[in-house]
Amino acid sequence: MIRVIGIDPGLRNLGWGVIDVAGSRVSHVANGTCISTGDDLAQRLLSLHTQLSNVISEFAPHQAAVEQTFVNKDGSATLKLGQARGIAMLVPAQAGITVGEYAPNTVKKAVVGVGHADKTQVLHMVRMQLPGAEIAGPDAADALAIAICHAHHSGAGGLSAAIERARA
Amino acid sequence: MIRVIGIDPGLRNLGWGVIDVAGSRVSHVANGTCISTGDDLAQRLLSLHTQLSNVISEFAPHQAAVEQTFVNKDGSATLKLGQARGIAMLVPAQAGITVGEYAPNTVKKAVVGVGHADKTQVLHMVRMQLPGAEIAGPDAADALAIAICHAHHSGAGGLSAAIERARA
Repeated sequence: MIRVIGIDPGLRNLGWGVIDVAGSRVSHVANGTCISTGDDLAQRLLSLHTQLSNVISEFAPHQAAVEQTFVNKDGSATLKLGQARGIAMLVPAQAGITVGEYAPNTVKKAVVGVGHADKTQVLHMVRMQLPGAEIAGPDAADALAIAICHAHHSGAGGLSAAIERARA
Repeated sequence: MIRVIGIDPGLRNLGWGVIDVAGSRVSHVANGTCISTGDDLAQRLLSLHTQLSNVISEFAPHQAAVEQTFVNKDGSATLKLGQARGIAMLVPAQAGITVGEYAPNTVKKAVVGVGHADKTQVLHMVRMQLPGAEIAGPDAADALAIAICHAHHSGAGGLSAAIERARA
């Protein structure tokens, strides 16, 4: 079994979702949203760092995945996203966890089957694949989708199967 | 005396410069460049975090300043800069240091006297204001300029003078 955390970075709300991958099966562990607090940017980044570090300590994932996205409509929004994404990449790296990156269309294709799915379809398919999971919100749903994508793509499933074969 | 670190964030090269501010006088302490290493983005961010944390431990600045810039020509470049900038803001915040942000024109105006100075003028004026300093490179020079700007703007000079008056 491999435990994967998916992270959907944002400066206000950073979504996270943890799943277990056993062969080709995925199951829900936990999900949530880190909400940044503080009066200035540095404090907000610090609060995200602290909260995400606590999540990783609590659930001890083996692998991490982050969406490889960029906003190009607005340089200022892209810079903000980048700052949050820097924290989202740093925290697992500090815990010694490798971080996979996936383009948004790759995530949608892995979860829904097509690259141009909308948010509602992604949420629906995340619920289907993780029955019984209470999903904290749209950022947490996206984070779970990223984790599922990683399970399909990265060889997390294959690695898990190899470990199970070795144990058998 | 107030010690200020200026940071010029970049994903490959992150410049830093430390100065002491006593009343209206500034003096050079140290400067350098953190060069990111590692095969993937998360490792590069981690290496910047480690190096910058070491610099802050070694020189123990009281205040930090980072340039408030964004690249709008290219979303991908802006996102990379944002990721490095997230680390540049996080590290002082983790050390309990407040982080000032200054627009590039504010930095140039503080150091050169005009907001549209080029890099050569900035370097020249940094050398003039910090005589004898050996400057590690262009990113370190920019970082020293940001620190000088903070000394002029943030009240670091005024704060230092107030401390000296209180001690007298």
